Amino acid sequence: MTAPTTAVTVDLNADLGEGFGSWRMTDDDALLSIVTSANVACGGHAGDGSTMRAVCRTAAERGVAIGAHVSYADRAGFGRRFVDIAPAELEDLVLWQLASLDGIARAQGTQVGYCKPHGALNTAIVQHEAQAVAVARAVAALLPGAAVLGLAGSVWLRVAAEHGLRPVSEVFADRAYRGDGTLVPRSQPGAVLDDPAQIAERVVSMVRSGAVRAITGELVPLTVESVCVHGDSPGAVTVAAAVRAALDAAGVTVRPFAGPPGT
Amino acid sequence: MTAPTTAVTVDLNADLGEGFGSWRMTDDDALLSIVTSANVACGGHAGDGSTMRAVCRTAAERGVAIGAHVSYADRAGFGRRFVDIAPAELEDLVLWQLASLDGIARAQGTQVGYCKPHGALNTAIVQHEAQAVAVARAVAALLPGAAVLGLAGSVWLRVAAEHGLRPVSEVFADRAYRGDGTLVPRSQPGAVLDDPAQIAERVVSMVRSGAVRAITGELVPLTVESVCVHGDSPGAVTVAAAVRAALDAAGVTVRPFAGPPGT
Amino acid sequence: MTAPTTAVTVDLNADLGEGFGSWRMTDDDALLSIVTSANVACGGHAGDGSTMRAVCRTAAERGVAIGAHVSYADRAGFGRRFVDIAPAELEDLVLWQLASLDGIARAQGTQVGYCKPHGALNTAIVQHEAQAVAVARAVAALLPGAAVLGLAGSVWLRVAAEHGLRPVSEVFADRAYRGDGTLVPRSQPGAVLDDPAQIAERVVSMVRSGAVRAITGELVPLTVESVCVHGDSPGAVTVAAAVRAALDAAGVTVRPFAGPPGT
Amino acid sequence: MTAPTTAVTVDLNADLGEGFGSWRMTDDDALLSIVTSANVACGGHAGDGSTMRAVCRTAAERGVAIGAHVSYADRAGFGRRFVDIAPAELEDLVLWQLASLDGIARAQGTQVGYCKPHGALNTAIVQHEAQAVAVARAVAALLPGAAVLGLAGSVWLRVAAEHGLRPVSEVFADRAYRGDGTLVPRSQPGAVLDDPAQIAERVVSMVRSGAVRAITGELVPLTVESVCVHGDSPGAVTVAAAVRAALDAAGVTVRPFAGPPGT
Repeated sequence: MTAPTTAVTVDLNADLGEGFGSWRMTDDDALLSIVTSANVACGGHAGDGSTMRAVCRTAAERGVAIGAHVSYADRAGFGRRFVDIAPAELEDLVLWQLASLDGIARAQGTQVGYCKPHGALNTAIVQHEAQAVAVARAVAALLPGAAVLGLAGSVWLRVAAEHGLRPVSEVFADRAYRGDGTLVPRSQPGAVLDDPAQIAERVVSMVRSGAVRAITGELVPLTVESVCVHGDSPGAVTVAAAVRAALDAAGVTVRPFAGPPGT
Repeated sequence: MTAPTTAVTVDLNADLGEGFGSWRMTDDDALLSIVTSANVACGGHAGDGSTMRAVCRTAAERGVAIGAHVSYADRAGFGRRFVDIAPAELEDLVLWQLASLDGIARAQGTQVGYCKPHGALNTAIVQHEAQAVAVARAVAALLPGAAVLGLAGSVWLRVAAEHGLRPVSEVFADRAYRGDGTLVPRSQPGAVLDDPAQIAERVVSMVRSGAVRAITGELVPLTVESVCVHGDSPGAVTVAAAVRAALDAAGVTVRPFAGPPGT
Repeated sequence: MTAPTTAVTVDLNADLGEGFGSWRMTDDDALLSIVTSANVACGGHAGDGSTMRAVCRTAAERGVAIGAHVSYADRAGFGRRFVDIAPAELEDLVLWQLASLDGIARAQGTQVGYCKPHGALNTAIVQHEAQAVAVARAVAALLPGAAVLGLAGSVWLRVAAEHGLRPVSEVFADRAYRGDGTLVPRSQPGAVLDDPAQIAERVVSMVRSGAVRAITGELVPLTVESVCVHGDSPGAVTVAAAVRAALDAAGVTVRPFAGPPGT
Repeated sequence: MTAPTTAVTVDLNADLGEGFGSWRMTDDDALLSIVTSANVACGGHAGDGSTMRAVCRTAAERGVAIGAHVSYADRAGFGRRFVDIAPAELEDLVLWQLASLDGIARAQGTQVGYCKPHGALNTAIVQHEAQAVAVARAVAALLPGAAVLGLAGSVWLRVAAEHGLRPVSEVFADRAYRGDGTLVPRSQPGAVLDDPAQIAERVVSMVRSGAVRAITGELVPLTVESVCVHGDSPGAVTVAAAVRAALDAAGVTVRPFAGPPGT
């Protein structure tokens, strides 16, 4: 048998721009040489004018797509704590973050192409419909028709579609999957992979086959438009670089899943 | 002698949107029925997604022009304390605030028409060239050619013009002037007027004559494109309403000095 | 029958010091002439060095007891939104707030006498045991044996007692009660009273009889050590003053329920 | 000639606890095994309840003295930007920070022993008398008679003495000195040393001789009660460890210059 002749493409995304003032989490310059989509912190859990401007400028130079990594307003907690904020306030908060990044991106000659909720907000809207609607309304207000990243099967992606947005489900390079296509919770053994070579090989396999080997052994079909590599863990750059190199070596075309709205 | 037959027009501006979360300083709804230009707090000394959105929506409905009231990042101090921030960081900070308000304004079907620095920043850039350049660069990057409000004769307005912006000098409804056209410092007696009727009559006179009676008695010529009424003092709405009524009664056309850039 | 001859005493508490920098919610000076216990914002939902110092100084002069009004770290949301913070972090956060107020109080020659959790935190720990334990541990670490205010029957008061603290249940001057002694939820009609005379008369009755007339008509026994009057609503001072005047007129001794720890 | 037979002692201090929530600058655990005095961030430029508690607990276990590293309220700028805050507000701000750390320290069984202003505040009060007085008043209010660290010859140390505090001048392990005993500005070549061995040798020489070789070659006498090693630069721990090892090897007794007030 021969390999498939259709061109295989995928996007590689990472969270970055996670700093503000004197504080830094992510190695933005290194990651922007590896990924094709940058989830940029825009003032919620991290991010300020300087980090957003620096990331947008470099991303524009290197053809990396820019996504708004919107979050609860919780710098100390890095957006990792659920906040029971009223939906109307959440909508305004997300619009504020989107607007910030979008204007700064345009001033650098680029644009926000998509939105990916961060941390506890992203987790909440897998099920929390009122908060999911709030985020979708904000995105649709400023970036009608834009792509949004999320978990396959989440309330968030359904609601986003209902607001005219384009739902894109992402897969995770370093997380183990269960037989039903959901992630193995971090609290369980084997939930997170850490060997760069193993992670890279697995990503290539997922992209080429459209399936992942579950922790229980069976093959689980997945839609693989974008692969998330982590940006803020120790060794993040090493893992991301290994994944990118393996995809390139396998002849996979790595490119943004979303350009600016309208492209 | 007869009154001049040329149509006399002027703009009336006030600071508003000065709140965030549960906190409020200004009576935005009342002021937006009186003024023609709204200097909107955009996250520096005050302002969040909800205040910006609410003001932009109402301003759009009522034909009030929107200005970005940019500031040092100092909520506790309400932007009234000089901060010796590096110019590159100030530029990014101002760009962030402009972008926030501009995106939120566009999502409400309107646009930012001008920029007016707030408080201690506004005071600093009367003379502080490096900070003035930083603000001008930020405005020119996002809103090329936009109007900016400032003090006549300031470094800020000169620098703004050098960056292709349109400098507009404002006069103050309730402040006493010296013979050289500068303001009597607040620390001196008589610096601030507080009688609504007197303030209103004086504004009409300034607008019609293009001059103000200095505290020392002589007439001082002034360019009167926009008159600033205060938004955050006790009695602010009363004074603003008195000024507006007097201008209307005198047949002065009160309208925005600046529309969205390009109009 | 004759009236009881035993002396009747009660404490009157209110939330105050709710401001920071240029922002203000409460009329502290007026309230400190009315209440006998001040629940002082200490940096969570409100409060900074200046507000804490001013309240402590005035409270010391007037013999008003000082309580730490601890809260989630959420100024924008005024501490009214549940935050799913890890218990260990909550404990450190509450300790920080307690320490701030206690040191400032001691520098004014007084001391923190009790702790009353604020807003969403206070609501959460009615049932959320892990967060209740975190607050209790923080109080016990800095102020062993101190009094704490809370809702009768709450997990919070039980846990506080288990940590060696003295639980004190408060009643609310302007809230309707149900037949089981719990509050009528704010979302229901009649939940909040607003007539100062009616509120005042009702408080006197509660204090003298040890019972309240429920919204459904029956008399419900209550332990009335401290009565909470609101500090941040319109008319707060008027209501508080009416309650105080009625208690004084009825011969009720109004005095702090808790002094500094150890007194 | 023979070496002096008197016992030579010195203190080694470093800035630490410089983090908050998810953010970290300093390797506190490593530094607390090296230095004898910890300048602990207490909420101004960095520091929260968790960082303060962790540092105080470890410091108490290891006999390290605790100093309050007070600062302008400027987390984003890490306290490195001058803020023209009114003296009365600065006094309250510093008192707040001192109180926070002191209460947390006492809850861990230790106490704040001294105060060292941070960054731009420390630089300002070398000359800014009004701000120096504000800081001194705050320290004297909570910790009467406490030791304070500062630059020899500064307005700050003079003013501190006038408020009954004990001024202690520190020397810097890695900074070049001019012939008049002041530091070579960072903007000039040779201002900062970076070779651990050279720095360590130089500190031993300073401690034993009470003098430093100026950048211009002459020996300059210095009072060496405490030597500051940096905590937040790359290689900070390596340099600090080298200095400590060299002092130990030279037979210098390294111990805190100040215990809790009153000891």
